[in-house]
Amino acid sequence: MFKNIDGGVTAAHGFRAAGIHCGIRKNKAKRDLALIVSDVPAQAAAVYTKNRVQGAPIAVTRAHVADGTACAVIVNSGNANTCNANGVLVAQKMCEGTADALGLSANDVAVASTGVIGQPLDIAPIAAGLPALVAALTDTGSADAADAIMTTDTRRKEIAVAFTLGGKTCRLGGIAKGSGMIHPNMATMLVFITTDVDIPADLLHAALVQNCESTFHMVSVDGDTSTNDMVLVLANGVAGNAPVQAGTADCDTFAAALEYVMRHLSREIARDGEGATRLLTCKVTGAASTAIARAAAKGVICSSLVKAAIFGADANWGRVLCALGYSVPALDPHTVDVSFASAAGELCVCKAGQGVAFNEEIAKKILTEDEVIIRVSLGAGIHEAEAWGCDLTYDYVKINGDYRT
Amino acid sequence: MFKNIDGGVTAAHGFRAAGIHCGIRKNKAKRDLALIVSDVPAQAAAVYTKNRVQGAPIAVTRAHVADGTACAVIVNSGNANTCNANGVLVAQKMCEGTADALGLSANDVAVASTGVIGQPLDIAPIAAGLPALVAALTDTGSADAADAIMTTDTRRKEIAVAFTLGGKTCRLGGIAKGSGMIHPNMATMLVFITTDVDIPADLLHAALVQNCESTFHMVSVDGDTSTNDMVLVLANGVAGNAPVQAGTADCDTFAAALEYVMRHLSREIARDGEGATRLLTCKVTGAASTAIARAAAKGVICSSLVKAAIFGADANWGRVLCALGYSVPALDPHTVDVSFASAAGELCVCKAGQGVAFNEEIAKKILTEDEVIIRVSLGAGIHEAEAWGCDLTYDYVKINGDYRT
Repeated sequence: MFKNIDGGVTAAHGFRAAGIHCGIRKNKAKRDLALIVSDVPAQAAAVYTKNRVQGAPIAVTRAHVADGTACAVIVNSGNANTCNANGVLVAQKMCEGTADALGLSANDVAVASTGVIGQPLDIAPIAAGLPALVAALTDTGSADAADAIMTTDTRRKEIAVAFTLGGKTCRLGGIAKGSGMIHPNMATMLVFITTDVDIPADLLHAALVQNCESTFHMVSVDGDTSTNDMVLVLANGVAGNAPVQAGTADCDTFAAALEYVMRHLSREIARDGEGATRLLTCKVTGAASTAIARAAAKGVICSSLVKAAIFGADANWGRVLCALGYSVPALDPHTVDVSFASAAGELCVCKAGQGVAFNEEIAKKILTEDEVIIRVSLGAGIHEAEAWGCDLTYDYVKINGDYRT
Repeated sequence: MFKNIDGGVTAAHGFRAAGIHCGIRKNKAKRDLALIVSDVPAQAAAVYTKNRVQGAPIAVTRAHVADGTACAVIVNSGNANTCNANGVLVAQKMCEGTADALGLSANDVAVASTGVIGQPLDIAPIAAGLPALVAALTDTGSADAADAIMTTDTRRKEIAVAFTLGGKTCRLGGIAKGSGMIHPNMATMLVFITTDVDIPADLLHAALVQNCESTFHMVSVDGDTSTNDMVLVLANGVAGNAPVQAGTADCDTFAAALEYVMRHLSREIARDGEGATRLLTCKVTGAASTAIARAAAKGVICSSLVKAAIFGADANWGRVLCALGYSVPALDPHTVDVSFASAAGELCVCKAGQGVAFNEEIAKKILTEDEVIIRVSLGAGIHEAEAWGCDLTYDYVKINGDYRT
């Protein structure tokens, strides 16, 4: 249905991006300012953090995207521009400077910031860096932009796919950052997705919101929902397809492509959780409803004790049962099966709520792979869900014990 | 109002206790079986874990305490007797063996187990150890019993107080275990409290349930609610006071003494959280309701990022704001003040939701004390609450990365 292609957030036609070091961060080797631009007006949709403390960029972007259009997004890392007296003013200046440099209206520019909370963000290095940033814009600039939005991330996160709508080849791709303060509703991340599909903002928004439930809302690294999360999608119509209409096969195809890209970025964010050595996936089946399946899957990947056991490659399935017991209100433990799986095989460790004898060596082998899957069958229905997290390691503590100073 | 006295769970007259090594654990230096006995029939009240997966001892104790009386409690560490096919049978046998040895009815014996989940609990060492355990019973046996119920705990937890009801001196004391899998509702712990007060089971239960809200339910170490939590209070009336009646000053005095003991044990459990180097207390004032104050205080002490920052003695108050933002539904960040306090002083770091300049050296000094207090003023009302947790350290990961094997 989709073909993976190169290009990330600049794979869609009519989009350019760039990422530079402007000086917000002291480390000159780390890019800290990114720009993504559509060469033509684009439809826009976004979802934001549900934290009641929200960064100034959230307020400004929310206002600018309210009309369903945007052409550019300016993003800095190294400072969240949150809980600052002049935060909104600085975020507005970032939009105005970007608009001036590109010949746009500030109202068509979105802004995002990520980094430490509560320290004033100096507009000077950003203003000084804008000319160079605009000059660096290119239709292969995705990687530089992806690098520039990283904070404690250890790996660049980008993906793109191609697919066909009404005989026209279309592209959809994105970049993401997210490593700590990752938790559902709205998980702690920045995600920018572009597509050259011609689709109205309301359908774009509906597809985005719906897909968030099964993708970004199913990721947790540390249970902390950040103040600055944002997922922004720009659709500029350059592919030339007949505009997508609600309830059509094209609409379904587009939503599926969007879900594919969002799912990939969700997994990449979980895999790169602060200090993580393993991607932890929980697949729940046999639930009485999707909501219960999701609660169960999230409960397991959020448990500090499960996460620490996975770090230690310890097949401590009792902690999985325990997490299910406080996450699923009507759980009947006597119908629950649990197995651990990975590229090294699969092992049933709990049947009908009770332990089954298993080979500890095989378990160890399964649990030391890069991706570990915990399969849970609740035995109570036909619904299922999947959630992603990571192990809890010494490095998580190290990274977060002294992040600010 | 109360005087601290020695004796822990055997401070109240008419109670004896003991703790021995019977062989559930391999380490012969670690006591693993405890017994607490009232020499006369006692009124009993208990609260249990709200996890849907519950250990077999919970089911058996629930049945035995349902009539409001109990004379003894038998407790093992090293195995939770949870998710085992024969768990209820083994828990019943523990009660029967204890009852036989003491000349009681099995229905008057409570049972609790703590340790790894999902491994069959062998009755043999317990049955073999019971005669020695009963022989060791003494009215100074609190410390041995407290030691025997410890798992990853690093310190014994006991307290007792004396107070006066109607001219009679009464005593109330308890022991607790709890270090990991600690989270409100019902926090992950075993607590046994005894008193020689004459009080009917219904009032005892009401005082216990009410005080849990402000004490054990305000403790979190890791967000995991265990399968085996139990707080049991036995009141044997040996003090000879006129039976406590509802709505009297005596009833208030008793409830206050109980709250004092429960609060002390709550703080001790938080202080001894797995891997903890610091007790973290969050005091919230200015809330629109007690429920909001409690949600705010719990949100702060549960945040992995706040906990890691405290470990690193990093005055990262932005994470406190962030935690408040996702814990308090109607939070207005613009009325929030935050300060850090300890024996080394107090420092305001956030005023009206925005950072204030502060001396980093003074902050470091405050944050390296044994107990760190985060004071939050919500500026939205007159209600307040207090919650207790601990820092998140390398040792938490180490302890839980390989607990089972």
